[in-house]
Amino acid sequence: MKDLGIGIIGTGFMGRSHAMAYAAAAGILPGVPRLRLVAVADVDEGAAARAAAQFGFARHTTDWRDLVSDPAIDAVAITTPNVLHREMALAAIAAGKHVHCEKPLAPTAADARVMTQAAEAAGVVTQVGFNYLKNPLLGLARDMVAAGELGTIHSFRAIHAEGFMADPDLPHAWRLDPSGGPGALGDIGSHAIALARFLLGPVDAVWADLETVIKDRPVAAGARERKPVLVDDIARLALRFARGCRGTVEANWVATGRTMQLAFDIHGSRGALSFTQERFNELLFHRAGGDPRHAGYVRIEAGPQHEPYGHFCVAPGHQLGFNDLKTIEVADFLRAVAGGPRRGPDFREALAVQEVIDAALVSAREERWVAVPG
Amino acid sequence: MKDLGIGIIGTGFMGRSHAMAYAAAAGILPGVPRLRLVAVADVDEGAAARAAAQFGFARHTTDWRDLVSDPAIDAVAITTPNVLHREMALAAIAAGKHVHCEKPLAPTAADARVMTQAAEAAGVVTQVGFNYLKNPLLGLARDMVAAGELGTIHSFRAIHAEGFMADPDLPHAWRLDPSGGPGALGDIGSHAIALARFLLGPVDAVWADLETVIKDRPVAAGARERKPVLVDDIARLALRFARGCRGTVEANWVATGRTMQLAFDIHGSRGALSFTQERFNELLFHRAGGDPRHAGYVRIEAGPQHEPYGHFCVAPGHQLGFNDLKTIEVADFLRAVAGGPRRGPDFREALAVQEVIDAALVSAREERWVAVPG
Amino acid sequence: MKDLGIGIIGTGFMGRSHAMAYAAAAGILPGVPRLRLVAVADVDEGAAARAAAQFGFARHTTDWRDLVSDPAIDAVAITTPNVLHREMALAAIAAGKHVHCEKPLAPTAADARVMTQAAEAAGVVTQVGFNYLKNPLLGLARDMVAAGELGTIHSFRAIHAEGFMADPDLPHAWRLDPSGGPGALGDIGSHAIALARFLLGPVDAVWADLETVIKDRPVAAGARERKPVLVDDIARLALRFARGCRGTVEANWVATGRTMQLAFDIHGSRGALSFTQERFNELLFHRAGGDPRHAGYVRIEAGPQHEPYGHFCVAPGHQLGFNDLKTIEVADFLRAVAGGPRRGPDFREALAVQEVIDAALVSAREERWVAVPG
Amino acid sequence: MKDLGIGIIGTGFMGRSHAMAYAAAAGILPGVPRLRLVAVADVDEGAAARAAAQFGFARHTTDWRDLVSDPAIDAVAITTPNVLHREMALAAIAAGKHVHCEKPLAPTAADARVMTQAAEAAGVVTQVGFNYLKNPLLGLARDMVAAGELGTIHSFRAIHAEGFMADPDLPHAWRLDPSGGPGALGDIGSHAIALARFLLGPVDAVWADLETVIKDRPVAAGARERKPVLVDDIARLALRFARGCRGTVEANWVATGRTMQLAFDIHGSRGALSFTQERFNELLFHRAGGDPRHAGYVRIEAGPQHEPYGHFCVAPGHQLGFNDLKTIEVADFLRAVAGGPRRGPDFREALAVQEVIDAALVSAREERWVAVPG
Repeated sequence: MKDLGIGIIGTGFMGRSHAMAYAAAAGILPGVPRLRLVAVADVDEGAAARAAAQFGFARHTTDWRDLVSDPAIDAVAITTPNVLHREMALAAIAAGKHVHCEKPLAPTAADARVMTQAAEAAGVVTQVGFNYLKNPLLGLARDMVAAGELGTIHSFRAIHAEGFMADPDLPHAWRLDPSGGPGALGDIGSHAIALARFLLGPVDAVWADLETVIKDRPVAAGARERKPVLVDDIARLALRFARGCRGTVEANWVATGRTMQLAFDIHGSRGALSFTQERFNELLFHRAGGDPRHAGYVRIEAGPQHEPYGHFCVAPGHQLGFNDLKTIEVADFLRAVAGGPRRGPDFREALAVQEVIDAALVSAREERWVAVPG
Repeated sequence: MKDLGIGIIGTGFMGRSHAMAYAAAAGILPGVPRLRLVAVADVDEGAAARAAAQFGFARHTTDWRDLVSDPAIDAVAITTPNVLHREMALAAIAAGKHVHCEKPLAPTAADARVMTQAAEAAGVVTQVGFNYLKNPLLGLARDMVAAGELGTIHSFRAIHAEGFMADPDLPHAWRLDPSGGPGALGDIGSHAIALARFLLGPVDAVWADLETVIKDRPVAAGARERKPVLVDDIARLALRFARGCRGTVEANWVATGRTMQLAFDIHGSRGALSFTQERFNELLFHRAGGDPRHAGYVRIEAGPQHEPYGHFCVAPGHQLGFNDLKTIEVADFLRAVAGGPRRGPDFREALAVQEVIDAALVSAREERWVAVPG
Repeated sequence: MKDLGIGIIGTGFMGRSHAMAYAAAAGILPGVPRLRLVAVADVDEGAAARAAAQFGFARHTTDWRDLVSDPAIDAVAITTPNVLHREMALAAIAAGKHVHCEKPLAPTAADARVMTQAAEAAGVVTQVGFNYLKNPLLGLARDMVAAGELGTIHSFRAIHAEGFMADPDLPHAWRLDPSGGPGALGDIGSHAIALARFLLGPVDAVWADLETVIKDRPVAAGARERKPVLVDDIARLALRFARGCRGTVEANWVATGRTMQLAFDIHGSRGALSFTQERFNELLFHRAGGDPRHAGYVRIEAGPQHEPYGHFCVAPGHQLGFNDLKTIEVADFLRAVAGGPRRGPDFREALAVQEVIDAALVSAREERWVAVPG
Repeated sequence: MKDLGIGIIGTGFMGRSHAMAYAAAAGILPGVPRLRLVAVADVDEGAAARAAAQFGFARHTTDWRDLVSDPAIDAVAITTPNVLHREMALAAIAAGKHVHCEKPLAPTAADARVMTQAAEAAGVVTQVGFNYLKNPLLGLARDMVAAGELGTIHSFRAIHAEGFMADPDLPHAWRLDPSGGPGALGDIGSHAIALARFLLGPVDAVWADLETVIKDRPVAAGARERKPVLVDDIARLALRFARGCRGTVEANWVATGRTMQLAFDIHGSRGALSFTQERFNELLFHRAGGDPRHAGYVRIEAGPQHEPYGHFCVAPGHQLGFNDLKTIEVADFLRAVAGGPRRGPDFREALAVQEVIDAALVSAREERWVAVPG
């Protein structure tokens, strides 16, 4: 297996996170091909240069097209604002690159469909950055649901609440630009929807209430002039799953006090699971029946028995960090690029998430249940 | 102040709870008039006799009308299935009694309105058993919201989840009889709606999805014959409050693993609260701003600084129990009967809860937002 | 069974707690004889009068000897400072009364021994107020240890930490008077030692370090004059149990921030328990072995399956309060008085606790392990 | 600044952890010199070869002396059983290398003293692997204590409990060989003692009870023959700090159910801290005074405001993992090697920990308080 050449576009929160993960993956997880860290692109040349130097990439550029067309690069990681994903991904696919793209995949399902079709037509491997799904305990949760350990699923509830947009004087920025799609619904709601599908499978229909809590914001940091906010701060969804159960999802980025509450509760006829990303090395599991004296939720602690935790640490209870989840995601992508199993979530899966989002937008506008394309 | 004569109708879970609370209230809480425990009524004579003997009531009867018309009785506590509340309450009111009625007040808002109007016309004091609201820490929460300590409220989410109906072989019983109104929505959803109003005030409009998870159940315990269930097991509501914010409520009585999860999260521009009845002597409070090194939720522990905790125990952290909440409710009722402040929740408040429920039923049927009568 | 006449000496924190529990016990728990609430004694006549009126006692007195010699009284509850317990208990026993005494039983083991011998010679029933042991979940814990569910016990650790003495300007009072015995060691350490014995049985030997953290305190509230504190604020004990395992106990009443941390961890070869009175309706249980994917502590919630929870509430997870534990204690005492099983802890058990305390005092003075009389 | 050449001796749990951290540090944390990963040594050639390949080291060897004398290597990481640390560290120091050594530094304080003196004489930088101290929240805790935010310290309690030795059929291995020093006391107790010193400074005197719970173990995996265990499974220490306060430490490696309970409670006159490594991205802080309605512990969540969290992730609440702590440790070491501040803990600090351990051994043998050399 020849070394894979990697290029990363973007050097923000996620750009850094990708760079760290690409640098770490081969050393930590088995079956990951060796990499050549070829190039970093950012419109800010200083940022690009610093990131390249910091993470050991061979060169940097301010022109992502230059990176995408570099024959030394086999796989491209796109970590820019989502309004840019489509153009970049299509160019990368056209150049025959495998593509690792941050979430949400695109502003609309239509964009995501074009990207998915292009990738599938080209036969390249794709990966989308729903990194929380890479938590070994969420893999356990999905396996338990699939194996029937919870019995028939009665209900689902997920929340993705953070407070990073709660300050009304936080100025406009790309996350608030409607050209990028919805607000909290797309930005963090996509995580919760991806989680819902990961655990329980396809969603048939959705109902949504979208709300803009901070009606206007400064046009720029410190500016007195304000302009209206046109995207949602809070999205409240009701879901009907193809498997027959129902549930809700709330995405809320004005949730003062919360920093990383991606949480869910699943109740089934034989058991229940409860989880929050705030303590993501723990999964609460209730099994119906058994000795009634001991009835309660078990606080399962992540350990080497939960793949691939053991590659990070041989001792249970020592805990993975956020960046480790990204490392697992990168490893999954790279192994797929090297011909291994495609664990996803890939563009096709991200398209399905986007279709739930688009249906939610229609629902919120028309105040009715909306079917999600199958 | 002359001693007040008390009669209780019903000897089940709530009947016992009321009896204990009436026996305890005057000894624990200040300003409570002395009581004469006059009579207990239950259709099961043995149960009535046992309850009277156990809790120190002077007599028992199988005929609630006999109790309601007893001139020695000043106040009647109604703890029967809710389909019976209207008739009993109206008779008690007609006899000039003060009425303490379990929740939900009635199967429909129409019933509740008749009861409320009768009580108000008669000038009697009423109280409805939304006992969880009597938690000193929920009083603190309401006061904090009212004082603006959380700033402008951004969002609300409440859950009342229990698993007591999760077993599909649990037979039909009065809670499942549609003559009593909805299922989980009325039974435990009424608690969550009362909580929403308690904390944030009136609800303008509601949307609801009602679901029957266990489609049929045995006609009786152990029976092989099953008949369809016509009430909801899970109710998922979206709310729009008159104050301008929005939220959701889920009522779920098939939530395997949960026993008493009446929980809420409120996020405001300046702070947040988080609570669950599973640990009801604790209230989590996040205050925005302050020293960023110490940012996080405070776990407030109930103590004598939270009225009326100190009358139960002078030491903080020792914890109230469920029955203590009922005792506070009874004391509030009795003090109002004795001419003190009417702290409620009274029939008028319970009617408002019922109107949200009725609107939710319409919404679920017609799949649209429904205004709640003001 | 004739009604039992009850007298209570003392109207402070514990006096009130006893009064509430005596008033409640017969109504809540089965097999409790009916009571006549005969008299309350307190040196402060107003306090005595108010308590009698509040809790429904027939009369009050400022002379405890008058109460103790009242032929209408069958059982006496002593809730005064512990320096007074011996004289009061001996007088009550001499008058043929059953005695319910607050903890610690006496300032010294010698006192406790005299009291125990007198009670046993007289054949009266005794009960000591280690109320936390009445928690249904601690009964479960003890039963699990006894049944071998934890295997061979490897270790024990208990903490009783509260902060009520942390303020250096809190003045001298009876708890700080060495005539009453040690400080934190006796006051709250006695709870932790009683817990250790309850769960694991007799203690063979003890080592102790006693520390006075606040070296002097005001002679009275607000006084500028200070005098030295001669009792311990923190007691740190190492224990060797007769069963072969070892452990530690810390009693600390200057633990700023803690209000009711009576906590323990037991580890055995096959399992472990973890508990804190701060959430006393929960018991954490880890069972070794089993499916490794699910390894972790179960959070057992108290429910009707844990006797006698169900007499307070038929629904699990609703939670007992502190006063309910006292009610269970009173019921156990009264049933024993009525000829039922003697569940204790009685004077003999409290004497054994006191002997551990006395041994700890010797150990702290002589800096060596000290055997506890068997 | 020229690139630093790194060699690692040992490829077990800690060898891997070091390798990952050395590979990651320069990319993540600022001011870290660039590295050349020169060599890995392990007596097992296959393990050495695999580790070198996996983590990107240029060569491997079975002879640690070969590695230590390699002129291309500037710094040596020693991750072997602690009985080997002295010889390896002295050789590395003699060769002019900077030394990063795992904890405990050596079997005895005498060994640690020789190592410390050699390192100081040679002027090389040293670092010891008390990685938990690198937690940004523990830095906060230490700073808060130092700044007086807790007032005068009243008490300290630390626990390091894990269950990895609880199985009586786990065979003898190097951790149980008394040539390596004590058992749990040295292996995990050293962490708790290092933590005590980190937070509260020097220890003046120690008392200890050491216990061997599993009296004998198989001579090898699966063997029927057993031989006695000569080291402690549980160490219980009482400490007197130079600053005047006292405390306790328990080290317990037979604590069934616990995986990573390195926990402490500090109570001071103005506040308190509570922590467990089981949730090491959280620190509980109670501040005395303030609004009594809100009294309780704040659950501080780690975020970018707690250096150097922000270099791993710009968003709060996303959580560091165990390996990230090791990365911080490595970065601190490498910056010191490059002439930056020496943050330690260095050999001198580890010697001080060892002196507490040695004093504890004397105390346990002689059953008395033992002064710790200053």
